Amino acid sequence: MSTKKQLLSIFALGGIHEIGKNMYVVQYADNIIIIDCGAKFPDETLLGIDLIIPDISYLLDNKEKIKALIVTHGHEDHIGGIPYLLKKINVPVYATRFTLGLIELKLKEHKLLRETDLIEIHADVTLQFDPIAINFFKTNHSIPDCLGIVLSTPEGNVVHTGDFKFDLTPVNNQFADIHKMAEIGSKGVLVLISESTNAERPGLTPSEQLVGQHIEEAFLHAERKIIISTFASNVNRIQQIVNAAILTNRKLALLGRSMVNVVEVAIARGYLNVPEDMLVDAREVKYLPPEEVVVLCTGSQGEPLAALARLANGNHREVKVLPDDTVILAASPIPGNEKSVSRIVDHLFQLGAKVIYGSSSYTGMHVSGHGYQEDLKLMLTLMKPKFFIPIHGEFRMLHQHRLLAEAVGVEKGHTFILKNGDVVDIENSEARQTRKIPSGDTYVDGIGIGEVEGIVLRDRKQLSEDGMLVIVLTLNKADSTFISEPDTISRGFVYAKDFEELLTKVNMLTKEVVNELQTDSRQQIHVFRREIKKAVGQYLFTQTKRKPMILPIIIEI
Amino acid sequence: MSTKKQLLSIFALGGIHEIGKNMYVVQYADNIIIIDCGAKFPDETLLGIDLIIPDISYLLDNKEKIKALIVTHGHEDHIGGIPYLLKKINVPVYATRFTLGLIELKLKEHKLLRETDLIEIHADVTLQFDPIAINFFKTNHSIPDCLGIVLSTPEGNVVHTGDFKFDLTPVNNQFADIHKMAEIGSKGVLVLISESTNAERPGLTPSEQLVGQHIEEAFLHAERKIIISTFASNVNRIQQIVNAAILTNRKLALLGRSMVNVVEVAIARGYLNVPEDMLVDAREVKYLPPEEVVVLCTGSQGEPLAALARLANGNHREVKVLPDDTVILAASPIPGNEKSVSRIVDHLFQLGAKVIYGSSSYTGMHVSGHGYQEDLKLMLTLMKPKFFIPIHGEFRMLHQHRLLAEAVGVEKGHTFILKNGDVVDIENSEARQTRKIPSGDTYVDGIGIGEVEGIVLRDRKQLSEDGMLVIVLTLNKADSTFISEPDTISRGFVYAKDFEELLTKVNMLTKEVVNELQTDSRQQIHVFRREIKKAVGQYLFTQTKRKPMILPIIIEI
Repeated sequence: MSTKKQLLSIFALGGIHEIGKNMYVVQYADNIIIIDCGAKFPDETLLGIDLIIPDISYLLDNKEKIKALIVTHGHEDHIGGIPYLLKKINVPVYATRFTLGLIELKLKEHKLLRETDLIEIHADVTLQFDPIAINFFKTNHSIPDCLGIVLSTPEGNVVHTGDFKFDLTPVNNQFADIHKMAEIGSKGVLVLISESTNAERPGLTPSEQLVGQHIEEAFLHAERKIIISTFASNVNRIQQIVNAAILTNRKLALLGRSMVNVVEVAIARGYLNVPEDMLVDAREVKYLPPEEVVVLCTGSQGEPLAALARLANGNHREVKVLPDDTVILAASPIPGNEKSVSRIVDHLFQLGAKVIYGSSSYTGMHVSGHGYQEDLKLMLTLMKPKFFIPIHGEFRMLHQHRLLAEAVGVEKGHTFILKNGDVVDIENSEARQTRKIPSGDTYVDGIGIGEVEGIVLRDRKQLSEDGMLVIVLTLNKADSTFISEPDTISRGFVYAKDFEELLTKVNMLTKEVVNELQTDSRQQIHVFRREIKKAVGQYLFTQTKRKPMILPIIIEI
Repeated sequence: MSTKKQLLSIFALGGIHEIGKNMYVVQYADNIIIIDCGAKFPDETLLGIDLIIPDISYLLDNKEKIKALIVTHGHEDHIGGIPYLLKKINVPVYATRFTLGLIELKLKEHKLLRETDLIEIHADVTLQFDPIAINFFKTNHSIPDCLGIVLSTPEGNVVHTGDFKFDLTPVNNQFADIHKMAEIGSKGVLVLISESTNAERPGLTPSEQLVGQHIEEAFLHAERKIIISTFASNVNRIQQIVNAAILTNRKLALLGRSMVNVVEVAIARGYLNVPEDMLVDAREVKYLPPEEVVVLCTGSQGEPLAALARLANGNHREVKVLPDDTVILAASPIPGNEKSVSRIVDHLFQLGAKVIYGSSSYTGMHVSGHGYQEDLKLMLTLMKPKFFIPIHGEFRMLHQHRLLAEAVGVEKGHTFILKNGDVVDIENSEARQTRKIPSGDTYVDGIGIGEVEGIVLRDRKQLSEDGMLVIVLTLNKADSTFISEPDTISRGFVYAKDFEELLTKVNMLTKEVVNELQTDSRQQIHVFRREIKKAVGQYLFTQTKRKPMILPIIIEI
């Protein structure tokens, strides 16, 4: 990358054309500022992969230029990659008090806490990395203590919104700083980098208080135990659940490791107010009168191992769902999770519970943390950017966000719809997008990082669908005659009624192949292997319409 | 099962607590009438399974009592299991003209057409299987030529609704026969068996004509090529697409095998009116002016191999999506398909197309074929049943449907929420549910039916997530000393940087295990195997946090 003194460059290592693994870079000359370092959960085609993080090879090649990692907020898609980044690059991490609490949990798990430089910031600090100065502004989102970022460079000011909505009646008075945003806009914004999650949705995001009203109502109507599930990180929603519990004289029990961890951090750092005697251990729930208890749990997305799923399946050790208990899903399913959520709702109904579930517009039990079209237009109007880079969304969302920007005055041709790795270079107030730096998905699989190749995934796919056959034979090294006859072992391959017969035929075929090849002078083992695979593969396909993986193992003695 | 002369029994072999594989049985004394024989598509946990059909062991045990299979309509979840049933039981199949057309396509594929007894019926016939008489009534749904069924038995009348909605302004004047339903209700209904898919949705289902209006509007605004995707079986929607194409002077090309097949059947049998010169071959599309062509294709559910996905990926041989083409998704994603549909929408946007997609309430491009709460209440009101069996739905839908039934006058305790296999027996106007007959999922995998056992699926799951290691060693039969040293082959297992080293260590460990065991007198091979698995498994887990399948193959010579 050029190190021309006057060049301002902006690019994403993750977060564009996807929801997840957000990681953005602003570089001025030889100064690199990283914004966020998220992870993404793999889809069903990535068999056995635990997590996806951004490809950071550009950063590894430019280690010495990195000044800071600044984290806008504590969601997984913004902090999940941090431990993996820190294992390779030692960079100071800047975040607000609550966000740092969540990052610390993560670093503890990876045993990285001691050696990491964590710096607490708030909306009023200025960070100085000459010639870049960095300021912040408060925003609203579905997690406390979120920041937008202003990077002042000699070329001009770059604003990164983080994830945001405008909530004019936020819980716990955590107001977004609209006046400061207006001021930033007045001073002039060269580039606005803004999130696009809900760019397809018309209107303004409803206030989180709406959820509070519906929770209160449901609590007032509940006759027995209440079980309520939401995102552990949505501390403001949890505050409203706590408030409703106070109102209805109920104790609160927490289920699920992340719920316990996050609530602990939120209370300790002053983001959640819970009366001292209110929390009870999950083991006490069964001894309390049902009308005096609320169970707050993880698993609102249908995660099969989380607390709600275990409650629905009746195999939670401490808590049982009983007839006429009220179960509230205070979260809408994220696209892709609909089926597992409805499976859980179904089980809860079968246990006789009163279940409050379904689309948020119907139950009022969820509002989005991401701004709708009017929120996005308000941000664009406040910032009045010369150039615009929509991020944090699939292509169609970025596309819609561009239309919104143009509707409020961003000049045509001044919006850059990037891919991860596309670089926008700005020099003398001219922006152009011509370069690319390396980017992509790095897979985390067990404890190996980034070592899972396409071939392994292809193998897993074949194994998962059709299973495999191992054919073992021992040949005489001298003349390739049989020392032991072919024997076939199968795993994950279809059991037909005539399965034994099928395997016998496979062994016979193998023998035929070997015998035939022997008549042709001396053959190499890989020829035996290839021909056995071919003959057996064809035979099995005609017989079963399946293509199991075939592994001939030939031992020569 | 009892063959007492006066016993009326009703049960499901599939379709309850699930959406899919509908199959219901009404038995009076020794007369069995089967209603529908559907299939279900497997979810992501059933690795390699193609299709799920009902367990028909009860029918196999009572073959001689089966009088007829009556099919309510031609959707996959009502006809998909027919070929598999017919391979085991020769039963005459009764269905309407259009439904038979779709069944014939299926039987042709399975080479069963010639030997099957297919009998065309319509709403006005009476079938006589003494002492059961069967009558029908027309209903509306998202496929033409649907029937509800009235089975008159000496015990009383049993009504099965099939899938239905009330559409008072149906396309092609295919009116539901509300007067006949009222008449049936007046004569007295002992048991109503009614579908429950949309029992959770308030209101009345919108008319299919609403979709027609939106399609027309979109066609009038389109400037270049139109590509529109919907369910092949929704012939009424296709009629409205044809009408809009006539209005805007466009030719029609069909993409996708099922689209071509169904449209052919629908035209041949008089359910779809297409002007003679309107259809063009897909290969001609690129030679026609874009403003004069509509491409109608399959794949609205995001199926990765269907036409729409191939168009979106730019790898369709005949047709390309070009900038400013209009692409319409005239179908809402079925729960579970949201993610693959949005992936396709994203690709279409990237090709520069104008995409009309998203929730049906927003675009008006889809209405459900299943009645909402008011439709269900209207059916219940018309039929005034003594007993009620809600079917065709997950538990929560059946539960809501019961509440609806009670709201319009069905007595409490007269609704039976069954599981597949639960039998309702009715005798002297008393209904009770005490017995169970065998039921469950039969898996179709390749050409084997029902032969895939849990163990195979467990193997596939392990293989798909962590892959496998085959460890081969040859021992001397006499003293278990090594003839050839351990050698390890892996597939689908993680490639770490030090992978060779890992395998070397596995071989060493194997050798150690064998040597150690040899000191203990003569060991059996299964002990070697077990101990190798244990030692290598533990080692690999500590090193990689993975549990690949380990297959020690020991050859004794």
